[in-house]
Amino acid sequence: MGEFELLARLRERLPPPGGRIRVASGDDAAVTVPGGATATSVDALVEGVHFSRDCVGLRQVGSKAIATALSDLAAMGAEPGEAYVVLTVPPDLDEDACLEAVDGMIALAEATGTTLAGGDVTRGPVLSFAVTVVGHAASAERFVRRDGARSGDALLLTGELGGAAAGLLAARGRTPGLPDRMGVDLARRQLEPTPRLEAGRALAEAGATAMIDISDGLGADARHLAAASGVGLHIDAAALPVAEGVAEVAAALDLDPLELAVSGGEDYELLAAVPPRGLDLARLSESGGVAMTRIGEVAAGRGVEIRLPGSRILEPEGYDHLA
Amino acid sequence: MGEFELLARLRERLPPPGGRIRVASGDDAAVTVPGGATATSVDALVEGVHFSRDCVGLRQVGSKAIATALSDLAAMGAEPGEAYVVLTVPPDLDEDACLEAVDGMIALAEATGTTLAGGDVTRGPVLSFAVTVVGHAASAERFVRRDGARSGDALLLTGELGGAAAGLLAARGRTPGLPDRMGVDLARRQLEPTPRLEAGRALAEAGATAMIDISDGLGADARHLAAASGVGLHIDAAALPVAEGVAEVAAALDLDPLELAVSGGEDYELLAAVPPRGLDLARLSESGGVAMTRIGEVAAGRGVEIRLPGSRILEPEGYDHLA
Repeated sequence: MGEFELLARLRERLPPPGGRIRVASGDDAAVTVPGGATATSVDALVEGVHFSRDCVGLRQVGSKAIATALSDLAAMGAEPGEAYVVLTVPPDLDEDACLEAVDGMIALAEATGTTLAGGDVTRGPVLSFAVTVVGHAASAERFVRRDGARSGDALLLTGELGGAAAGLLAARGRTPGLPDRMGVDLARRQLEPTPRLEAGRALAEAGATAMIDISDGLGADARHLAAASGVGLHIDAAALPVAEGVAEVAAALDLDPLELAVSGGEDYELLAAVPPRGLDLARLSESGGVAMTRIGEVAAGRGVEIRLPGSRILEPEGYDHLA
Repeated sequence: MGEFELLARLRERLPPPGGRIRVASGDDAAVTVPGGATATSVDALVEGVHFSRDCVGLRQVGSKAIATALSDLAAMGAEPGEAYVVLTVPPDLDEDACLEAVDGMIALAEATGTTLAGGDVTRGPVLSFAVTVVGHAASAERFVRRDGARSGDALLLTGELGGAAAGLLAARGRTPGLPDRMGVDLARRQLEPTPRLEAGRALAEAGATAMIDISDGLGADARHLAAASGVGLHIDAAALPVAEGVAEVAAALDLDPLELAVSGGEDYELLAAVPPRGLDLARLSESGGVAMTRIGEVAAGRGVEIRLPGSRILEPEGYDHLA
């Protein structure tokens, strides 16, 4: 099957345009009427770099390609709008396999209210997805950037940490003593991340002054937020919500579970700075669709400190990831 | 150099945000205030599929990646706005080479008034560019689609045909007798296409009812326009503007020059249907920045007929390229 046929088959599977979309796939470009302001982010998943076809289902990888891109929109507090995909198909991937990946993309898009509005299919040496997502807000000021955190703000985190990193270790078969069910649950945290779109919008509504998604690990991404805002972040290690199974994987591999929670990437949770006045975590968690935890405070100064029991302080390293 | 460092270097080279851009590269997403309606298109250039590093400079290929994506916006009559790029970098490409490709992208973006507003860099097996471009108009109705051509409309073409295909043949060294200068000029038509953005807007202003860019060859793309509009297109072969050097390349290879002009792809010219009343080709060519030629008419019926001397009619084949 050629790439044009595949593109046609792909388009048959797309939902009809609606909402802001006036022309979807099939013309030279998709036409939308955005209104207000848009937030646009691009992300890529490349076989051999970000995933291996041996370890992940094609439906999962399609879904993850859309999910990780949408996570950036969640971190802006955006309403998800449209997704555009360049799908690169290697010679050894047959039609059914391609359509499985496409179905994964469509399912995640539908589950989040995102319209797959356009795409292109090309041949190439490995399977890869380049995804552009567009989110919306009434005005540019409604989006939550990384640079607005102020001393005194509470630091909130959605969901739990370390699950994706532990899941990767478990999936690689490096934790022989781990109960099967626990391994499967952890692997899903790695393979099927949930973009925290509702939580991002709830945090924006609650007046979040800065927000970022935790794709490179809490330590690294907290540093990015601190640097962009010109503040220090004080995180209480005892308050960190560590995912179930992380302790077991850490024990099996003789690792510190806190290390997995702080440095393990791909959790795709949100870290937000929110003014503490009137903060109602229970209500926020409910409207955001995920438990939120207060893990520390924004302070004057710079950098990130993680306060451990016994007055020890960890200053997480972290590479300079700029996006 | 890691991908994060490269991303940082890339971002240093980007122009500052302006116009519709409120936040460019560096946050989770770029923020824009589009106003009106947007046209969004994605396109990819993959090494080994669309280009070979042996035959093309990296600056050229970066420039071409942006140009071919913008050609789709030209075909909508859009004002170019923003571009977002996923750059995949293979292990054997060094920093200077990467930045050369980036400089090519930036130069083409600047030349066309497009803002490179965001991007991502990833490792991968071959050099590739996945480009998303966003164009603008006051309303969705201002964009020119493929489906509005009406019987009686004049068929207009920008620029000349066959140059890119002849350039590819010349670049492959298959035309030994060709004068050097001619080979160089033709190769540039293949390697450095010009997106006809001004011409697209001029044609939209002139009331174009349907428009498409000629990336797959006039024959194939005319069929797409005819099918989308539910009309027939009658093209006069004698009126076709064939690029200089095409006849020489065709003669050297014992090909029909008309075949190169009609079936050769990658010319990235525009084909538009325009109501003939009050049509002033000279004025339109001037405001569009490129010579335009009336090459035929829209008629009732379906499909594409190319009328040859001696009452012969060619019905171009063409594969079903759907984007």
